Amino acid sequence: MFTLHVFHAQDGHSIEPDFGRLEALRADPQITIWLDLEEPSEAEARVLSEVFHFHPLAIEDTLQDYGHPKIDTFADHVFIIVHGIDFSRLDIEKSMDVHTLELDLFFGQRYIVTHHGNPSLRSIHDLHKDVCEPGHRPWTSVRILHRMLDRLVDNFLPVMDQIGCKLELLEDMIIHNPEPDLLERVLDAKKSIQRIRRMTAHQRLILESLARGHLELIERESLAFFRDIYDHFVRVADLAEAYREGAQSAVEAYLSMSANKTNEIMKVLTQISTVMLPLTFIAGIYGMNFDSMPELRWVYGYPFAVGLMVVTAAGLLIWFRRRHWL
Amino acid sequence: MFTLHVFHAQDGHSIEPDFGRLEALRADPQITIWLDLEEPSEAEARVLSEVFHFHPLAIEDTLQDYGHPKIDTFADHVFIIVHGIDFSRLDIEKSMDVHTLELDLFFGQRYIVTHHGNPSLRSIHDLHKDVCEPGHRPWTSVRILHRMLDRLVDNFLPVMDQIGCKLELLEDMIIHNPEPDLLERVLDAKKSIQRIRRMTAHQRLILESLARGHLELIERESLAFFRDIYDHFVRVADLAEAYREGAQSAVEAYLSMSANKTNEIMKVLTQISTVMLPLTFIAGIYGMNFDSMPELRWVYGYPFAVGLMVVTAAGLLIWFRRRHWL
Amino acid sequence: MFTLHVFHAQDGHSIEPDFGRLEALRADPQITIWLDLEEPSEAEARVLSEVFHFHPLAIEDTLQDYGHPKIDTFADHVFIIVHGIDFSRLDIEKSMDVHTLELDLFFGQRYIVTHHGNPSLRSIHDLHKDVCEPGHRPWTSVRILHRMLDRLVDNFLPVMDQIGCKLELLEDMIIHNPEPDLLERVLDAKKSIQRIRRMTAHQRLILESLARGHLELIERESLAFFRDIYDHFVRVADLAEAYREGAQSAVEAYLSMSANKTNEIMKVLTQISTVMLPLTFIAGIYGMNFDSMPELRWVYGYPFAVGLMVVTAAGLLIWFRRRHWL
Amino acid sequence: MFTLHVFHAQDGHSIEPDFGRLEALRADPQITIWLDLEEPSEAEARVLSEVFHFHPLAIEDTLQDYGHPKIDTFADHVFIIVHGIDFSRLDIEKSMDVHTLELDLFFGQRYIVTHHGNPSLRSIHDLHKDVCEPGHRPWTSVRILHRMLDRLVDNFLPVMDQIGCKLELLEDMIIHNPEPDLLERVLDAKKSIQRIRRMTAHQRLILESLARGHLELIERESLAFFRDIYDHFVRVADLAEAYREGAQSAVEAYLSMSANKTNEIMKVLTQISTVMLPLTFIAGIYGMNFDSMPELRWVYGYPFAVGLMVVTAAGLLIWFRRRHWL
Amino acid sequence: MFTLHVFHAQDGHSIEPDFGRLEALRADPQITIWLDLEEPSEAEARVLSEVFHFHPLAIEDTLQDYGHPKIDTFADHVFIIVHGIDFSRLDIEKSMDVHTLELDLFFGQRYIVTHHGNPSLRSIHDLHKDVCEPGHRPWTSVRILHRMLDRLVDNFLPVMDQIGCKLELLEDMIIHNPEPDLLERVLDAKKSIQRIRRMTAHQRLILESLARGHLELIERESLAFFRDIYDHFVRVADLAEAYREGAQSAVEAYLSMSANKTNEIMKVLTQISTVMLPLTFIAGIYGMNFDSMPELRWVYGYPFAVGLMVVTAAGLLIWFRRRHWL
Repeated sequence: MFTLHVFHAQDGHSIEPDFGRLEALRADPQITIWLDLEEPSEAEARVLSEVFHFHPLAIEDTLQDYGHPKIDTFADHVFIIVHGIDFSRLDIEKSMDVHTLELDLFFGQRYIVTHHGNPSLRSIHDLHKDVCEPGHRPWTSVRILHRMLDRLVDNFLPVMDQIGCKLELLEDMIIHNPEPDLLERVLDAKKSIQRIRRMTAHQRLILESLARGHLELIERESLAFFRDIYDHFVRVADLAEAYREGAQSAVEAYLSMSANKTNEIMKVLTQISTVMLPLTFIAGIYGMNFDSMPELRWVYGYPFAVGLMVVTAAGLLIWFRRRHWL
Repeated sequence: MFTLHVFHAQDGHSIEPDFGRLEALRADPQITIWLDLEEPSEAEARVLSEVFHFHPLAIEDTLQDYGHPKIDTFADHVFIIVHGIDFSRLDIEKSMDVHTLELDLFFGQRYIVTHHGNPSLRSIHDLHKDVCEPGHRPWTSVRILHRMLDRLVDNFLPVMDQIGCKLELLEDMIIHNPEPDLLERVLDAKKSIQRIRRMTAHQRLILESLARGHLELIERESLAFFRDIYDHFVRVADLAEAYREGAQSAVEAYLSMSANKTNEIMKVLTQISTVMLPLTFIAGIYGMNFDSMPELRWVYGYPFAVGLMVVTAAGLLIWFRRRHWL
Repeated sequence: MFTLHVFHAQDGHSIEPDFGRLEALRADPQITIWLDLEEPSEAEARVLSEVFHFHPLAIEDTLQDYGHPKIDTFADHVFIIVHGIDFSRLDIEKSMDVHTLELDLFFGQRYIVTHHGNPSLRSIHDLHKDVCEPGHRPWTSVRILHRMLDRLVDNFLPVMDQIGCKLELLEDMIIHNPEPDLLERVLDAKKSIQRIRRMTAHQRLILESLARGHLELIERESLAFFRDIYDHFVRVADLAEAYREGAQSAVEAYLSMSANKTNEIMKVLTQISTVMLPLTFIAGIYGMNFDSMPELRWVYGYPFAVGLMVVTAAGLLIWFRRRHWL
Repeated sequence: MFTLHVFHAQDGHSIEPDFGRLEALRADPQITIWLDLEEPSEAEARVLSEVFHFHPLAIEDTLQDYGHPKIDTFADHVFIIVHGIDFSRLDIEKSMDVHTLELDLFFGQRYIVTHHGNPSLRSIHDLHKDVCEPGHRPWTSVRILHRMLDRLVDNFLPVMDQIGCKLELLEDMIIHNPEPDLLERVLDAKKSIQRIRRMTAHQRLILESLARGHLELIERESLAFFRDIYDHFVRVADLAEAYREGAQSAVEAYLSMSANKTNEIMKVLTQISTVMLPLTFIAGIYGMNFDSMPELRWVYGYPFAVGLMVVTAAGLLIWFRRRHWL
Repeated sequence: MFTLHVFHAQDGHSIEPDFGRLEALRADPQITIWLDLEEPSEAEARVLSEVFHFHPLAIEDTLQDYGHPKIDTFADHVFIIVHGIDFSRLDIEKSMDVHTLELDLFFGQRYIVTHHGNPSLRSIHDLHKDVCEPGHRPWTSVRILHRMLDRLVDNFLPVMDQIGCKLELLEDMIIHNPEPDLLERVLDAKKSIQRIRRMTAHQRLILESLARGHLELIERESLAFFRDIYDHFVRVADLAEAYREGAQSAVEAYLSMSANKTNEIMKVLTQISTVMLPLTFIAGIYGMNFDSMPELRWVYGYPFAVGLMVVTAAGLLIWFRRRHWL
């Protein structure tokens, strides 16, 4: 499936239904195009090599799932792979498992070609609406790129905030009751956060190289916009790092609270045993069957034994209190 | 709400009640202005774009809560976001939760524009008093910026010192009695310190770029002042790093002391059980009901049994002492 | 053993059976050769110094097992040592022990000389087939090098993916049942991953220096191909780092789950002891042999004692439930 | 309090009792002066601004306790803050708490001004003696600076060595008997070492900038001397890093040995319980009061019961030995 | 003690018995000398300053034990301190305690002066033999330096390999039986490895500066040889890093396996207690002395009680099996 947006410097925006006029459109200096390929058929994909003459390796990386962000500069265009949040598989309430979708992007003087799977990124979805709305500023390829990345980066922050809240909640719960399924959720979250962190580390470098003006395709006056995107993404990367530390802290808290719980349980066991074993022993003594045990014949023997038990128990309880065990 | 300070090179300081003469004041080369916006109304905020013509993205970052320090250099001014301690929410005695407030700052040749929420930073509060006091040196925008950052940085150190004291106290308490609520407080402190640490890492870079003379707006002879601020903030960043290590140490101390406490409790349990179980067993033997148990009929049976118990107990206690368990 | 491929610019590919014409072939500007030495005899190895005049230290490093990747630039050729997966010793199902094989490589203007042990790398094995197939593009030494490295790097990714899957599986198993043999497998995996990680760190630098165009032997238009290999290998290195973190997480999970299991076992022990010891004590009391124990003579004594036991047990169970222990 | 050493190129050394001739001395190109201020009175401190015209911020940092090392270069002099061991509070035998003293230092063409509290650094104390001794080489400000730093750095090494020995001793003691007060001492040591480590990290940079010839005040032929001081201090920093790792290891050893001790105690408890509980149970059976228990009437009942107990105990002990528990 | 090798460009090698002709030999452009000082007497050491005029600080560092590798460049010579394995104190079978010996080295145009203690490095020992053997290439000071460092570095690798094997063995042993003396050996090994790692980090920088051609004394065509030494040493440093990680892993394995062992022991204790306590309680009930206990009079009372015990025990064992405890 494909969508071919055509922006004419004067006549505004239209959508081209097929590839027939593509070569002509590319040649017209008045026209900017955005070709969005969503799970393209083989015939559709062929346009990348036959019309745009992109590098075969870049096309190969586009059509496969490449796996992590990258940027490649060619003579007259740039090939970028960025990752956005996959909202179709996101349900923070159930699990903190955050997945990303890959967006392949060829960015040239008067064209931009994007490729993605289905479901597409939310930012692409929104961009299709944005470009159709009437506006006073013409859509250049730089402006499309900026809007696309801006929306993509802005989608990260609310998700990161949700993860942060959940993580804090989890750590609080762990401190009050270190249960294994809480740990399992923290470990899952940690895995997901580490994946995000690695992805953001790469993506940050790409956005930085756009913001630093390393590409001649982006004119100086637009740099401030890309620097803004970069600054926002630095916050995402920063939060990813912070949450990784948070998840690590939660695991340590789990271990510490488990150790504490062990001590609590052990204390109860020790208190019970320490009181009960001596009392049982006393009972055992007077349960012996010796013929000549004066206490047994003594009329106050029973009260004496019970008294002995009470004194012993009381002594032990006082000893406990001295040791701050009660 | 806004406050508009006007500093005339000869006639000194006055406060302008409204924006009417703002354009004229900006144009006058004899005049330096400081416009402080506190939770500005929409009309007040519009002055940023309409009078000062700041970049729309900088204005957007100003009016939202941006989240972490940054610096952006424009053709004739600099946009800075710095963070200061939020004293309105600080109560070290109760919790080590330290929050920061954001200060947005536009700094140009003869003007400085600040924006913040309510409550404002203590340093802004103090600066309003400072500029009103009569002094022999004129207030240039560089001097206002320096004083502002100087006060902001100086407010960090006493707070850091308080955190350091509390942390040391906590670690001492943990070593003597590893209780879970102490751990909880340490984990809370750690979270707060990590937040400060990340913030200081960014802020330090900003102060460094001011101190290194990267900005043409700051003349060479003023650099020593900014270097001084930078040096002071390096200490803050340094302390944040130190306290992070300290908090980590405290968590490790908790784990170690918990392990130790487990052993202490276990030792008591083991000692009691090891003494009591054999004695109870002896009592159990002579509690058996066999018809032919010579000891039971023996006149010294009872003392013999008690003696056997005493000898057993004594033997076990000696064995304990040999193992350094008592 | 050796294989000597000869690529003539016009006449295509042939395999030379012996070294007789080697000097002549090297001198012919129309001809590119690939000499592959597999565990060469001493006579075969002598060709490195006598025909190609390679540096004696490079030859020494070639004939020994050098141990880790490196690159050395000489006046008119480059000496490279790279590592590929050793598929002959790989059986991910049984163990995650991944070994690598060394490939020594001399790369010059119109020749490439490779040296390896037996079994050789799978990439070399495949390359022998590749070069024999008829194709329209001539095989230059740069193209052979590229194809060789491309295949070598591509062989890493599926193995890394298998390791990733197994590791995730192991961590899941550990969380549900922390058994020591699972830990042993994780520790084995960690060791193997750390070995891969160190190797990839070095190999990555080598591929980067090829991709950055530091070598004059690789013309500018071929750099994109080497950059592609480099990008793919960055992913391998990235995964190695990720799996190292994953293995570390699994060890931490093991410790946490062990602590949890200890608590579970302790809880059972404490519950049983806490219920049984008091009951046994009550039984012990009424097993005492005092002459004057009114309860013993009482007709409802026995039901009373049993009742006392039931009440005690019930009280303890209620206390457990209050403490969320049941 | 102050001491004012005057070194005349020809006439040697004298001590000036007051500030009267200070201005004249500074102006004389034949004279080098060293002014040492120890807890100066306000009048004495005023000489810094009035005679030497140092920067007000440097004077402020001098008179307060600044907290960590720094270097500031001014037009014709350098302001340095270095730290030396505080021997007055050092008692390695009792505690590894190492404190440092601050030395503020203005170093110019023909003068050196030092400022410190009371007690002063040992290196300053020694330097006062050194400069009074007759020698053939004249004391220039560079030579005074070198000697001062040389003595300061040399005082570090024996202290570091003492810490190293104590730490190794502590780790050995922990491995043989993990007691909580040993842990407390290790944690104290760790805190002290981390403080030293942070200080050395800063101080090292300062000494490096002196050794690298960044200051024009130090002529090229003297650089070797400062490089030597730098090299010595690198060792101090290196040791601080090593001891930090050592302290960390000791904490880990404590945890490991505690876990081991837990196991040892648990083993004893389990062995005793496992032997005693079944025996007590057997005794309990034959303590039951059933009318018809054939064994009770049997003449060999008692020996049989005892035999049963011996067999049970022996069986359990054999089982223990099989499990390598004894 | 000293050995003075003299290499004449034409007449080959001889050993000079005393210092008499040293000045003359140094002046002769046809002659290269190697002076090896082993624990020199004061008179012998004086040659460093009086004949060679080395820098007093370099001589001081030479005659003392300096402690870690360094390089100092002077106008016409280089002063290097390197460390080699001390084979005289090495016994990997007994302990992994690896010590290093210091070699002080002055390297100039036509001379090399070495200084070391007794026992000397194995590489020096071997070099004395090497230079005496007749060869076709003349011994220049560069060639002596190369051979010396080559042998020194080559001696590291087998020792590192032995450490690696031992460490792997230790980790395996710990996983199968976490005994405290194994931990002690691992902690000892870790300490030793960290010492090697720090030393290699410094030494690597020195070898790198030799290999990079920073010294004018080493002509370009010899650089490949020093690069080779550097490459070999990178492997040593790499292995040191790997073994540090390995030792850390072994400590973690110890903790994990200890936790596991605790669980194993606890399980046995819990199983025994859980079975024995209820049975003992049943026996206790029928050991009570109530007059009216119908079961006691019942002819099948005893079998009933035993049956009750069997059923209880069986029930508990089934419950254990359900919990996967048996």
